[in-house]
Amino acid sequence: MGSLNNGHLDSDPEDDKEVDLELRRAVRELLEGMGEDSGREGLRRTPLRVSKSLLQATRGYRQKVKDIVHGALFPEVGLRKEIGQAGGAGGLVVVRDLDLFSYCESCLLPFRVKCHIGYIPSGHRVLGLSKLSRVADVFAKRLQHPQRLADEIASALHDSINPAGVAVTLECSHIYIPNVESIFVDSENRGWLEVVVSAGSGVFEDRRSDAWIDFVNLRKSRGPTVNGQRTEDDICEYWCPLVATDPSSIEMLYPELTALVTSIIRSLGENPVRKELAGTPARFLKWLMNFQNASLQIDLGNLDICPLDPSRPKRGENGHTEHLDSELNLPFCALCEHHLLPFHGVVHIGYIHAQGSNPPGRSLLQSIVHFYGFKLQLQEKLTRQIAETVSPLLGGNIMVVVEASHCCMISRGIEKIGSSTATVAVLGRFSSDASLRAKFFQSIRE
Amino acid sequence: MGSLNNGHLDSDPEDDKEVDLELRRAVRELLEGMGEDSGREGLRRTPLRVSKSLLQATRGYRQKVKDIVHGALFPEVGLRKEIGQAGGAGGLVVVRDLDLFSYCESCLLPFRVKCHIGYIPSGHRVLGLSKLSRVADVFAKRLQHPQRLADEIASALHDSINPAGVAVTLECSHIYIPNVESIFVDSENRGWLEVVVSAGSGVFEDRRSDAWIDFVNLRKSRGPTVNGQRTEDDICEYWCPLVATDPSSIEMLYPELTALVTSIIRSLGENPVRKELAGTPARFLKWLMNFQNASLQIDLGNLDICPLDPSRPKRGENGHTEHLDSELNLPFCALCEHHLLPFHGVVHIGYIHAQGSNPPGRSLLQSIVHFYGFKLQLQEKLTRQIAETVSPLLGGNIMVVVEASHCCMISRGIEKIGSSTATVAVLGRFSSDASLRAKFFQSIRE
Repeated sequence: MGSLNNGHLDSDPEDDKEVDLELRRAVRELLEGMGEDSGREGLRRTPLRVSKSLLQATRGYRQKVKDIVHGALFPEVGLRKEIGQAGGAGGLVVVRDLDLFSYCESCLLPFRVKCHIGYIPSGHRVLGLSKLSRVADVFAKRLQHPQRLADEIASALHDSINPAGVAVTLECSHIYIPNVESIFVDSENRGWLEVVVSAGSGVFEDRRSDAWIDFVNLRKSRGPTVNGQRTEDDICEYWCPLVATDPSSIEMLYPELTALVTSIIRSLGENPVRKELAGTPARFLKWLMNFQNASLQIDLGNLDICPLDPSRPKRGENGHTEHLDSELNLPFCALCEHHLLPFHGVVHIGYIHAQGSNPPGRSLLQSIVHFYGFKLQLQEKLTRQIAETVSPLLGGNIMVVVEASHCCMISRGIEKIGSSTATVAVLGRFSSDASLRAKFFQSIRE
Repeated sequence: MGSLNNGHLDSDPEDDKEVDLELRRAVRELLEGMGEDSGREGLRRTPLRVSKSLLQATRGYRQKVKDIVHGALFPEVGLRKEIGQAGGAGGLVVVRDLDLFSYCESCLLPFRVKCHIGYIPSGHRVLGLSKLSRVADVFAKRLQHPQRLADEIASALHDSINPAGVAVTLECSHIYIPNVESIFVDSENRGWLEVVVSAGSGVFEDRRSDAWIDFVNLRKSRGPTVNGQRTEDDICEYWCPLVATDPSSIEMLYPELTALVTSIIRSLGENPVRKELAGTPARFLKWLMNFQNASLQIDLGNLDICPLDPSRPKRGENGHTEHLDSELNLPFCALCEHHLLPFHGVVHIGYIHAQGSNPPGRSLLQSIVHFYGFKLQLQEKLTRQIAETVSPLLGGNIMVVVEASHCCMISRGIEKIGSSTATVAVLGRFSSDASLRAKFFQSIRE
C-alpha cells in the first residue's frame, strides 16, 4: 500500500521556495479573476498567507508515517494468553475525541474530523499514545474523502505497528456551502454537514466481531459522542454538497481560472488527474465565485417602508411610544479576505421601534446581510457596513452584533477549534446608552 | 514595559543545541534521583522528549510580539464619531474561547487557559483576528501566574496596536496535585482547580465602565462560559496547591536535585532568583517525588477477604448464585514515563460476584489503584498491573477499564485538548464472553 513511505515531494528548500512562489502567483491571479484589486492594502499579503496556509494544510504529502512511529514502540509484556488480555498482549487501547482538520478532495474546503482510534497490541509492544494522533494527521493533511481518510489511517497504523487490529471511526463535518440563491435553512447547524465513517483491520475487519463491539462500547463510554440521528457508515459518496454540480459549465466559463486551480493542486503535491479530483477546480471556483465582487445586487430604492426620524425626541420609557425591537440570528457566510477561507455565523440587529412606524421585515434585513456577506470581507467591516445600511431604514438608533466562526482560526495555523468572534456596531442612542446595549445583549442570550 | 521585544534568549542554533544537551542531562539525573534506571528501554529517550517539550512549552521567552503584529494591522475606516462606533473607529471586537496552555511558575506544571480577548480599535486599523491568539500564546508559553498572564497579554496588545483599550479574561485551571496521603475528594473535577482573572487597559481599565460591561455581555452572549460558582477576579494568590508547602525541607532533603531543577529553569530562559520562582524547584520536586519508585507500600498479605475460586463452574444465569458486580470511578494520577507529565482519570473494575463470597471493599481497591498510579507509568501497563493484582482477590473473572486524560496529549505537541484514552484488561470469563463485557461497559455509562 506504500502509505509508510508516502511523500510526494522532496523537501529541498529550493523546491519549496519555487512551489511557494508558484502558489502566490496563482492566488494573485485568482483574486484578479474574481474582480479584486490584488494590490490593495487588505489583499496585498493575501497570496503569501494563502500559500503558506495551503502548504501547511497539505503537509501530509510531505510526511512519512515511519518517521513518526520510529522509536515510539515501547515494551509492555501484557498477560499470558491463557490468563487473559492486557497491555502489550491483547489489551484494547482507544484514543477518543481527537480534533483534526482535513480538506475535501471535491471542493478543497476544510472539513472537521472528530477522530477515534482503537488498536489491540500484540508482540509485547505498545505505541506512544500521541503517535495515533500524529499518524492520523498525516492523512488528514491531504485532499481527502472521509472514507478514504479512515481507511488510510487504519492501514498505515496496521502496517507500522503490526497489532492484532486497528479500528477507526471518524465523525466528519463538511462546511455547508451556501450560494447566492440559497438562504441557510438551518441556522442551528451553523453551516456544517455531518457523516460518520469507520474502518477496521485485523480483528476489527468484521463490524459484527466482538472486538468491534468492544471498540464501539469503549469509544462511547464517556458519553454518546456520536449523535443519535446519524448512523455509523452513513453513505457519504455525495457528502460534499458541490459534488452534484456539473463542472463543465464552470470550466467553459472560466478556463484560465480552472487551469490556475489545477496548477495549485499540482503544486501541493497532488495529481490533479486522479479521478476524484476531476471536477474539483470547477467546484472550488463555483464556490469562490459566490463571493465575487458585486455578484449580488441590492436595491433599497423601492422599499415599502417608512423610515423613522432619528431626530425625533425620546418619549418617556413607560409611554409605550417606542420600544427595543430586534431581528436575531440572521445567518451569513463571508470569505475572509486574508485567507480566502469562509467565516460564517449570525447577525443580530437591535433598534428602537417607535409606535406607528413600519420597519422593514426580516427578509429585507436578511438580503442586506447577504449582500455584504457574499464578499471578500473582514468581520469588522461587515458589521459596520450592515449597520450603515440598516440605520436609515430603522430610524438611526441601531446596534449590530455579528457572531462568527472563522475557518482560518480553526482549521489551520492556530487551530483554535472552539473559538468564535463577536463584533459590534452602535449608532444613535445605542452609542451613548449602556443600559440599552445591555438590554439588547440580554435579548440575544435569551 | 518592554514586552514588545521581550526575548531572553538569542536563537543561535549552537546555543539551542547546548541548551538542549544541558536539559537532557538534567532530566536524566532527575530520573536517577527518583530511583529510576534512566537506561531502561522505556526511559532511554525520555530526556530527549522532555527537553524538546520543555523548550516548546517555554518558547514564549524566545518570541517577540512585534514580529507577530507586524503587517497584520489592516485598514478599516469605521464610522464618523458623531454617527456611532464601528469597525476601525470604536467597534468592539471580542474573540472568545481561545484554548491555551501555560505553565505555573510555582510548580512548573501546565495549566489550562480559556482565553477571551476584547479590544476597541482606533485610528482606522483593525488587527488580524488570529494575532490576538498568537500574542496571548507568547505570554502563555512562559512560567506564569494567571493574573500576570492576563496583565501581560493586555499590555502587550495595548502597546502594539494602540487601540482605545484592551480587555482580557482568563479562565485558568490548575492541575490538582495529589500526594500519597490524599485521596481525590472530587472525582468529578477530574483533577483541575479553577480561577478567573481579568485585565483591562484604556477604556477597559475601570471594571465599572460601560466598555467593560459591554465586553462581559459580549463574551457571554453565546452562552455562559464562566461557571456561575466562580466570580471574576477570584483571589488567586494561592491558587497553586503547592504554594502552601515549605520549600526548605525539600531543599535540605534533595540539594542536588533542587540545583538540577534550578538549572533547568535557567536553561529555559528564566531567572531562577526572580522572587516568585524562589521555592519552585522544591515544589516541583515535592510533586515529582510522589511518583518515586516504591515510595508507596502495599501489603495484600493480611486481608480479611475470601477470594473466589476461578475454577468454580458457572451456574445458570437465573440461578442468582453469581452476578456482575463492579467498583466504578476509582480516581488515580500517574506520571507518564515518556514526558514526565501527569495523566489522571478513573479506573473501573468489574467482576463476577458469587453468592457467599466476600470481595474486598472499595478502599482496598483504591489503594491498589494508587499503588500502581503513583509511579512513572504507561496507561497500558497500569491497566494490566491493576488487573493482575485484583484478579486473585476477586475470583479471577475480572475486567479493568482505565479512562484518562494525558497532559502530554493536551498541553504540548499535538494539543488535543478534548481527547482521552481508554484501556482495557480482561481476565477469565471476561476474555471470552463479549456480552459480559458489553454489560460492564453499559454499567460504566450509566
